[in-house]
Amino acid sequence: MPDPRCITLAAADLPKAWYNLQADMPHRPPPPLHPATQQPLQAADLARIFPMNLIEQEMSTERWINIPEPVLEKLLICRPTPLRRALDFERALDCPVKIFYKDESVSPPGSHKFNTALAQAYYNREFGIKRLATETGAGQWGSSLAAACNFFGLELKVYMVRISFEQKPFRKMMMQTWGAQCVASPSEETQAGRDIRQRFPDTPGSLGIAISEAVEDALTHDHTRYALGSVLNHVLLHQSVIGLEAQKQMALAGLYPDLVIGCAGGGSNFAGISFPFVRDRIHGKNVRILAVEPAACPTLTRGPYRYDFGDLSGMTPLLAMHSLGHQFMPPSLHAGGLRYHGMAPLVSQLKRDDLIEATAIPQLECYAAGVLWARTEGFIPAPETTHALAAAVREAKQAKEEGREKTILLCYSGHGLLDLAGYDAYLSGKLTNQDLPQAEIDAAIAKCPAAPAPA
Amino acid sequence: MPDPRCITLAAADLPKAWYNLQADMPHRPPPPLHPATQQPLQAADLARIFPMNLIEQEMSTERWINIPEPVLEKLLICRPTPLRRALDFERALDCPVKIFYKDESVSPPGSHKFNTALAQAYYNREFGIKRLATETGAGQWGSSLAAACNFFGLELKVYMVRISFEQKPFRKMMMQTWGAQCVASPSEETQAGRDIRQRFPDTPGSLGIAISEAVEDALTHDHTRYALGSVLNHVLLHQSVIGLEAQKQMALAGLYPDLVIGCAGGGSNFAGISFPFVRDRIHGKNVRILAVEPAACPTLTRGPYRYDFGDLSGMTPLLAMHSLGHQFMPPSLHAGGLRYHGMAPLVSQLKRDDLIEATAIPQLECYAAGVLWARTEGFIPAPETTHALAAAVREAKQAKEEGREKTILLCYSGHGLLDLAGYDAYLSGKLTNQDLPQAEIDAAIAKCPAAPAPA
Repeated sequence: MPDPRCITLAAADLPKAWYNLQADMPHRPPPPLHPATQQPLQAADLARIFPMNLIEQEMSTERWINIPEPVLEKLLICRPTPLRRALDFERALDCPVKIFYKDESVSPPGSHKFNTALAQAYYNREFGIKRLATETGAGQWGSSLAAACNFFGLELKVYMVRISFEQKPFRKMMMQTWGAQCVASPSEETQAGRDIRQRFPDTPGSLGIAISEAVEDALTHDHTRYALGSVLNHVLLHQSVIGLEAQKQMALAGLYPDLVIGCAGGGSNFAGISFPFVRDRIHGKNVRILAVEPAACPTLTRGPYRYDFGDLSGMTPLLAMHSLGHQFMPPSLHAGGLRYHGMAPLVSQLKRDDLIEATAIPQLECYAAGVLWARTEGFIPAPETTHALAAAVREAKQAKEEGREKTILLCYSGHGLLDLAGYDAYLSGKLTNQDLPQAEIDAAIAKCPAAPAPA
Repeated sequence: MPDPRCITLAAADLPKAWYNLQADMPHRPPPPLHPATQQPLQAADLARIFPMNLIEQEMSTERWINIPEPVLEKLLICRPTPLRRALDFERALDCPVKIFYKDESVSPPGSHKFNTALAQAYYNREFGIKRLATETGAGQWGSSLAAACNFFGLELKVYMVRISFEQKPFRKMMMQTWGAQCVASPSEETQAGRDIRQRFPDTPGSLGIAISEAVEDALTHDHTRYALGSVLNHVLLHQSVIGLEAQKQMALAGLYPDLVIGCAGGGSNFAGISFPFVRDRIHGKNVRILAVEPAACPTLTRGPYRYDFGDLSGMTPLLAMHSLGHQFMPPSLHAGGLRYHGMAPLVSQLKRDDLIEATAIPQLECYAAGVLWARTEGFIPAPETTHALAAAVREAKQAKEEGREKTILLCYSGHGLLDLAGYDAYLSGKLTNQDLPQAEIDAAIAKCPAAPAPA
């Protein structure tokens, strides 16, 4: 009998509570500031954007927060997710590493975003909200929220970054199949969208623009709130089921990872896989934790740490984070989910405290790792996920050079079945790295208006 | 804690042998005939099309055939597959039924076809073959064989039915990602393809045409053989892992199905889920077994039982089967995998012996069931799979009318993530049933040249 490749958990092993790293981290992030007054934000300031139950969760420092029964029930559609051993990828690399991947691609929309989508749709419904507005980059978040809103009986309007809307038409159809409405952003349906279209008629869009549109939509419609798929504390909280399950599964494999890897756009799948391990690290465990971002949108590795807006128009609160500036327009990478100018405040704080590392990898190296993965493991990864795979390749080669064995755990955040155009471009030699010159990044950062420096 | 929805098996529960129904069926199908002599086919007659080890399997009547270790190893990538309970679909139907579905969509290419693709690629490699040629309808088979050939180091050329090639461009990209070549059929690359294009320049293509092209390709290239994704005995054999696993999982659920449902194009996923249960039925168990086909390609329900060719040009052996005639050109249904004029001889024989039932369902009713499924269970089914779902809806309603409880097991043969254009057409009201008038079917059947009637 060949080696098992998959470590499954029973339904009873599904975590019953989310893990909140804020209870354990040595320094919590500085508070968000009100965009107008630049004073620390009060819960009430967010009440027109989010329902109060989620605002409370956003601000909570409780270590464990119970997952409501209706959310558990829907999580069981695809959770606990498998932990798989990448046996053939390891063999192809021929390096002294064991690579385990937590497979979040098995959810109905195909990524980890489903975890927080269910929770956010549920809490909004509990608060009496009838309709949500959101943005989406590659479409993973929009389609996840579409599935979740469908389950909990909410209407949904999705503003999808134009470049992804065009590259990934199936994502829109997927959202419609679950009953949501999806438009390309910038759109004609909001003031923010119309302004941008007038200034930059050919813009590929960005998450920053789409967030402005979705927030404006929520502020201008009755019984409507905004939902965000990453960056915020409560979103990262909901993703902690990934790492909690992975800890049980690694224990079943009789191993503890030397290194935990996640790709990082806003930071949510990275936080999901890693925060329970960050807790271990805080308590003295010898584990490295690595966030991987695109070289063309190098937020953690090159963006300064400061207060910045989450969106292009400056409608959101100011968050203390690594940021390339809220006016930064990332190139049209296929990894649309990683095209974000900022990084979650919790992740940014961990970077400042040297509890995590970060690296940036160019697009072509990521696709090379993705194709090698598809041809060894069989599954075709999302362009975002290939960043974690490319980092695993680098780490494996380093392990070989150093002659040291290494156990790697990575978050396989989503599949690439709706992103095959990127593979087509790569395989036909049409893809480039789309790296940015340092001067262009400096200019974007300089354009960002002054905001108080975090403590 | 909510009810578990998923019954998983451990790697050790993967079947170690395929189940061959020929050992148990009361009447075996009449032998295939040589296309020229119309005499019973000898193994040697097939030797230029298939490798001898698969020909032996095709003709075997052994009950259990061991699965080779390298095939087991690759099956473990996604097997044992989950058996899930469709709790929310049941609630939406509000009928006295329990519905379990065997989820074959979790394979890398997204369908059950991966099961036989692995076996066929392995046996060809063992026989010293370097290259395979095949046809594909919706692309599920072509992409599965692409993944399998990639694993076992074979080249692959896929002739993809033109209508699907155009509707589902991502399938081609998927095959390329695994290193295969894919062209639209009819193509300019074979005599069979050029002939058809001359006669019918606007043809949407059909599986029958694509098979002619692939067989011709295999006959005219060195070290090349042909591979078929359905219909033949050895293909159905390889799919028996589905039903064997499902039997263990139903036992874990403490239930035995009253009814087993599979959609049927050539018959392979239907055979996979049902043959182990057909065996039970032969041995006196009270279980109904239902094959579901499109109303626009009603092979089992309306096609006469006779000897017919598997392809359009009459290059294949004559098989004893229900057939609409090998020149039948099915409408451009989205369920491309069900657009085949014939039905597997083993399945056809079971129908003759009243061991199975068959029904045909129009396209719109299938999509309605598929959308209900997506909005309740979350997962978006392949257009082919929606036929099994629509049949389950009919059976559930009947159970309610009759006031009887029913446990249904169905084969969830694949996901619809690369078939979203069909959902888009359905949701925007552009889809029609594409039913065929009886006269048109009669004409197609009449056009079929006379062949000896099976015993």
